[in-house]
Amino acid sequence: MPLDTKTPIPTSFRVVGTRPLRPDGIDKVTGRARFGADMWAPGMLVGRILRSPHAHARIRKIDISKAQALEGVKAVVTRADFKAQDGDLADILDNVMAGKKALYDGHAVAAVAAVSAAVARKALSLIEVDYEILPHVTDVDEAMKPGAPLLHDGMITAGVEPAPTKPSNVTRRHEFGHGDVEKGFKKADIVVEREFKTEATHQGYIEPHACLATLSPDGVAELWVCTQGHFMVRAVCAGLLGIDISKLRVTASEIGGGFGGKTTVFIEPVALALSRKANRPVKIVMSRDEVFRATGPTSSASMRVKIGVTKDGRITAADGEFRYQGGAYAGSPVEFGAMSAFACYDLENVRAVGYDVVCNRPKQAAYRAPGAPISAFAVESVIDELAKKLGMDAIDFRIKNAAKPGTKSSYGPTYGEIGLITTLEEAKKHPHWKAPVKPGQARSMACGFWFNFGGQTCVSLNINVDGTCTLAVGTPDIGGSRASMSLMAAEELGIPYESVRAIVADTSSLGYNDVTDGSRTTFATGMATIFAARDAIKKLCGRAAQIWGIPEDAVVWEKGYARPSGANAGSFEPLSLADIAKSSGNTGGPIAGHTEYNAEGAGVSFATHIVDAEVDKETGRTTITRYTVLQDAGKAVHPSYVEGQFQGGAVQGIGWALNEEYIYGKDGRLQNAGFLDYRIPVASDLPMIDTKIIEIPNKGHPYGVRGVGETSIVPPLAAIANAVSAAAGVRLTQLPMSPPKVLKAIEEGARKGH
Amino acid sequence: MPLDTKTPIPTSFRVVGTRPLRPDGIDKVTGRARFGADMWAPGMLVGRILRSPHAHARIRKIDISKAQALEGVKAVVTRADFKAQDGDLADILDNVMAGKKALYDGHAVAAVAAVSAAVARKALSLIEVDYEILPHVTDVDEAMKPGAPLLHDGMITAGVEPAPTKPSNVTRRHEFGHGDVEKGFKKADIVVEREFKTEATHQGYIEPHACLATLSPDGVAELWVCTQGHFMVRAVCAGLLGIDISKLRVTASEIGGGFGGKTTVFIEPVALALSRKANRPVKIVMSRDEVFRATGPTSSASMRVKIGVTKDGRITAADGEFRYQGGAYAGSPVEFGAMSAFACYDLENVRAVGYDVVCNRPKQAAYRAPGAPISAFAVESVIDELAKKLGMDAIDFRIKNAAKPGTKSSYGPTYGEIGLITTLEEAKKHPHWKAPVKPGQARSMACGFWFNFGGQTCVSLNINVDGTCTLAVGTPDIGGSRASMSLMAAEELGIPYESVRAIVADTSSLGYNDVTDGSRTTFATGMATIFAARDAIKKLCGRAAQIWGIPEDAVVWEKGYARPSGANAGSFEPLSLADIAKSSGNTGGPIAGHTEYNAEGAGVSFATHIVDAEVDKETGRTTITRYTVLQDAGKAVHPSYVEGQFQGGAVQGIGWALNEEYIYGKDGRLQNAGFLDYRIPVASDLPMIDTKIIEIPNKGHPYGVRGVGETSIVPPLAAIANAVSAAAGVRLTQLPMSPPKVLKAIEEGARKGH
Repeated sequence: MPLDTKTPIPTSFRVVGTRPLRPDGIDKVTGRARFGADMWAPGMLVGRILRSPHAHARIRKIDISKAQALEGVKAVVTRADFKAQDGDLADILDNVMAGKKALYDGHAVAAVAAVSAAVARKALSLIEVDYEILPHVTDVDEAMKPGAPLLHDGMITAGVEPAPTKPSNVTRRHEFGHGDVEKGFKKADIVVEREFKTEATHQGYIEPHACLATLSPDGVAELWVCTQGHFMVRAVCAGLLGIDISKLRVTASEIGGGFGGKTTVFIEPVALALSRKANRPVKIVMSRDEVFRATGPTSSASMRVKIGVTKDGRITAADGEFRYQGGAYAGSPVEFGAMSAFACYDLENVRAVGYDVVCNRPKQAAYRAPGAPISAFAVESVIDELAKKLGMDAIDFRIKNAAKPGTKSSYGPTYGEIGLITTLEEAKKHPHWKAPVKPGQARSMACGFWFNFGGQTCVSLNINVDGTCTLAVGTPDIGGSRASMSLMAAEELGIPYESVRAIVADTSSLGYNDVTDGSRTTFATGMATIFAARDAIKKLCGRAAQIWGIPEDAVVWEKGYARPSGANAGSFEPLSLADIAKSSGNTGGPIAGHTEYNAEGAGVSFATHIVDAEVDKETGRTTITRYTVLQDAGKAVHPSYVEGQFQGGAVQGIGWALNEEYIYGKDGRLQNAGFLDYRIPVASDLPMIDTKIIEIPNKGHPYGVRGVGETSIVPPLAAIANAVSAAAGVRLTQLPMSPPKVLKAIEEGARKGH
Repeated sequence: MPLDTKTPIPTSFRVVGTRPLRPDGIDKVTGRARFGADMWAPGMLVGRILRSPHAHARIRKIDISKAQALEGVKAVVTRADFKAQDGDLADILDNVMAGKKALYDGHAVAAVAAVSAAVARKALSLIEVDYEILPHVTDVDEAMKPGAPLLHDGMITAGVEPAPTKPSNVTRRHEFGHGDVEKGFKKADIVVEREFKTEATHQGYIEPHACLATLSPDGVAELWVCTQGHFMVRAVCAGLLGIDISKLRVTASEIGGGFGGKTTVFIEPVALALSRKANRPVKIVMSRDEVFRATGPTSSASMRVKIGVTKDGRITAADGEFRYQGGAYAGSPVEFGAMSAFACYDLENVRAVGYDVVCNRPKQAAYRAPGAPISAFAVESVIDELAKKLGMDAIDFRIKNAAKPGTKSSYGPTYGEIGLITTLEEAKKHPHWKAPVKPGQARSMACGFWFNFGGQTCVSLNINVDGTCTLAVGTPDIGGSRASMSLMAAEELGIPYESVRAIVADTSSLGYNDVTDGSRTTFATGMATIFAARDAIKKLCGRAAQIWGIPEDAVVWEKGYARPSGANAGSFEPLSLADIAKSSGNTGGPIAGHTEYNAEGAGVSFATHIVDAEVDKETGRTTITRYTVLQDAGKAVHPSYVEGQFQGGAVQGIGWALNEEYIYGKDGRLQNAGFLDYRIPVASDLPMIDTKIIEIPNKGHPYGVRGVGETSIVPPLAAIANAVSAAAGVRLTQLPMSPPKVLKAIEEGARKGH
């Protein structure tokens, strides 16, 4: 169903843009919401996973006989219990259950299902794994060096011409850009080039992964799971277990945070394999230790960025090299990192090269705007330094070089209506930017960009006889999408928000939906909802025409009413949606609207963040004292949720910038796999995050919506680094800017005479 | 979506008519299928209901204070916790929770939710109900007498002109027929007139009613329930609790038998009301005692039937009066009983009058072909007696008078293609009918009729990328409908049966569906499935056209493949469903088909049953020694299930005819509320039930399907009564023909000189 471009984007709305109570609020505060661990089935077993304590080891043999013999153990599975894969699923299978090698500390090597957690734990201790410990590498730069321990046999870097002859840990090279950067740098009056490094962070969702699985001997399976994409879970699990997609019914539980980290599978195929072997339902709930060691944190990265400017502040060339390690398997988000690195600027000469590197770490997973905050940290740091060197205001310098409608982007496409300059201009006018900087503090800012996704989406909308409406969507609600879908359905149908109830349907009740990610849901599922409502409205008008005995095209839908329209339509009292719904049984049966489509036209989005920071030069501790987010939402469907996304992105960025990091020992083992040692920001660490919603409608959406969840985490790392650098009096180029690092930088800066 | 009458009913099928393994088989034999009691929620409470021990009593006062004060009690509800109703829901509410009066032994008067079953039981004992005991009546004839205790104030019999001035227990009079029966009887050479009586029976489903409910303060509710119609449950519960339909999501559990008895609500609104008050999930599971005392058994009935024939065996007139008590509220199936009573015959003069009567018994519920077995027992007994008096073969006599295509039925409509005569002819040819009757046994037969329902139905069919198909239906599967729907979808799509998986979707994921009843599901949901498949095929052809770059109308669908068709279509390799599905993401997104409609055209159906019986004249015990069912299925989609329906109907009929009955004491209390004292047939009581499927296609269905589940229980009461009467040498006119009744009839017959 292509977008009806004849219908203009409304300039005013009835319910879209209001702030009704959240539909999941009461369930969540009363504890009634059912999360991944909150499901139960008769005869259910406890599943537990045995994990490698080694960063890199060949698995010579696994002896499960003692575990199997233990009273109360109903199944033990290893790699042999899954269907061998090649192609896309091969790495996923290998990550879910190790094959010939364990590739990281925490890598699953076997699993048990038993009648109790105690028995399951005991059984794990009885599994004997004969490991041959191999040299390991966990740092991206080390992994790229010749002679580094190789994770995979014969991995030849793709995307390089001619193809390298030697295997390495570099899985792929990506390059984006246009113009001639060498020529561009020659035109520059000032060039800044710096190396940067960031550490891996975790999404830090509060709810650990959990699922309840059943798989019968006839291949019929059910799965209750906490996930951002139950259709993805279905496809992957069906593949790994070798069963038909149609036979696996997956229901998404309520979700206690995802942020991208629940867009892949870890425990689900294991629970299914255990269930098949035990012929009983099996529940697996990860511990926090397992979440840290064996789910998907971000990449860590190493980067070099070089930008040249003329004296009057025009960028002549921008070049960057981005090296992301994505854990033990190919697929770091370096492609997105390189694509988005320079996307905020209107550049004649630009090049971004990305290297996707494997290391002995858990395979990375998405984390809001995957890859973009990392490269933005490097680029926006250099931009900040250039502005300083030019003596220009940081915002003015960016406005001068900012991408605008018609700019050929650094990654290829030409921009349509975009709002970066508006966010910069609004930032400049903002009380925060204009306020005097408090003594001992520094202020800075940065910009950020995200593509936003579209993707495959299905929605069914059913009209009930009491005039209410049930909306079945297939994208798990991680950020308020049930509220925003209900608002859009209510807007289109002309009924109150309270009359619409959205649910997340299971995989057997609705067509395929891509994962809730890439800020796609409010855009794509929202558009699908609007189309489904229009489909239903067409039928409602048809029923009214039938009731009145006039042609269907003589009925129009206005503000929740079917009305006769046109000279020959006749004169009838308008019929409300409830009127028509009430008699639907007598006019042909239930009334519904459906959409199945692959959404296109997700508008890109930009944000500008302003931050004030104070650095204690004795302890190196940073305090964020004020923070403002300005971002283009296209159209904010439920402004409170949009503000929440803005605030959440800023807060997670603050954690990433200042404290969060995966710390590996020399033995390749993760040293801080818990919230005591891996410190995410808590309320007392934070100022109130101010927000300003900018609305530059996206022409690819009937209401102008753009995704908002990702862009808001892109600027913080850079914005905070710029403020901390200003406050500390020295450029910080490594994340996190934890007290020891800041102190060290201050000391080194002092030595260098800063 | 009206039936496409241009497409003829196929004469041969690829998968329809085969007997694949049942899709729910493994789950059911391994115990993994989840029934009503098999759901769980964190913090769940146990709900229990306090029931009236009196058949008829005014409730002066209910004191719940002591129960509420008991440690561990989280909620106590009475009638005041429900929304007052008028109209259709008023009686349902009153039945769910008594108002001013308790109207039967077992009537719910209060309920508690507590942390354990023990606490809940204790709490029930602490509720003090101040009853004023009133005179009661449980027999239908007694209830109709002037001066009988009246259940409801001011109940004036409807359907009588002029309206009676005095209130009574008769809620409504129904009349059907045509011609002039008085004139008809004058033409008769032989007239037989008899009075009959039947007792109430219970459907005897193995699974008691069970549900798990949550209802939040914001009116958002979820219900897991064992039911034949979760959309009906949603509508009724939303009304009784005063919440929006859209806010109540009902999921139908696997069902352990229904037979019509799970087409209404009993405990569900109570569990929701308790949950709302306790703000916790509440589970209620009925005991068997509660199932007997407080769910919906059949009517008991009293009847008079009079039929006249000419000497050559032609019926000149048929007249019947049918008095059914439907328990404490209006709505016995006497209307259906009267409508179907004479439906097997081609009659010039016919009249059937029905009286709907209330008694101090639980409100009746549907039980396979509601009302029809009772009236058929009376009519077919008289027909049998007439055949004997005429000296005609019982089948020949029926063939001579049987309804056929073009007959104006006794209840109004003119028949289209029907198969009664075919079943009779096949019965006559059947080895059973031709075999010599064994010594000491007797053989007889009877016919039966059922309308079959259509009704509101929605289906969604989703094509998966691996070429399999998921089918979401909204009619709970009580008789194999998931198998038959999958067969029809596979037939239409041209894929293997194994590639289709049907599920019963919840009420928020699909449009409204009428209850699984009236043998409507295989017909109506089946037709909806075929239409949904055709909708999907249209889209599949569109995608093929897009891939080939040819017009959509140049693609046809044949045996699972899109093929170019026509002179200008070009030459392309056919694309299979799996081929098109695999690339669907790139050709526009997921592919689905949907149907929402109100199905019409359910073909009526007829059956002929043959039975051999042996009566022990010393004990009065009857043994059924041979039994054959011949029935028109239109088209048997999955013949094993059809045979199962035939067999199940016969078996339940045997129980009804010989043993099952509600026994009330003089105190108005049910004396046999358990399977030890209410005896349903077990395997050792039964012969193998032979079946013969007749297929006279129903033109109202694309494959010719007719419902089969109801008709098969219509003839047994009469067929067995005819055989037992022949074996005993005396006409049995009261059910059940339990040993004491048979002995008594034999003794009375001996006294009268039979």
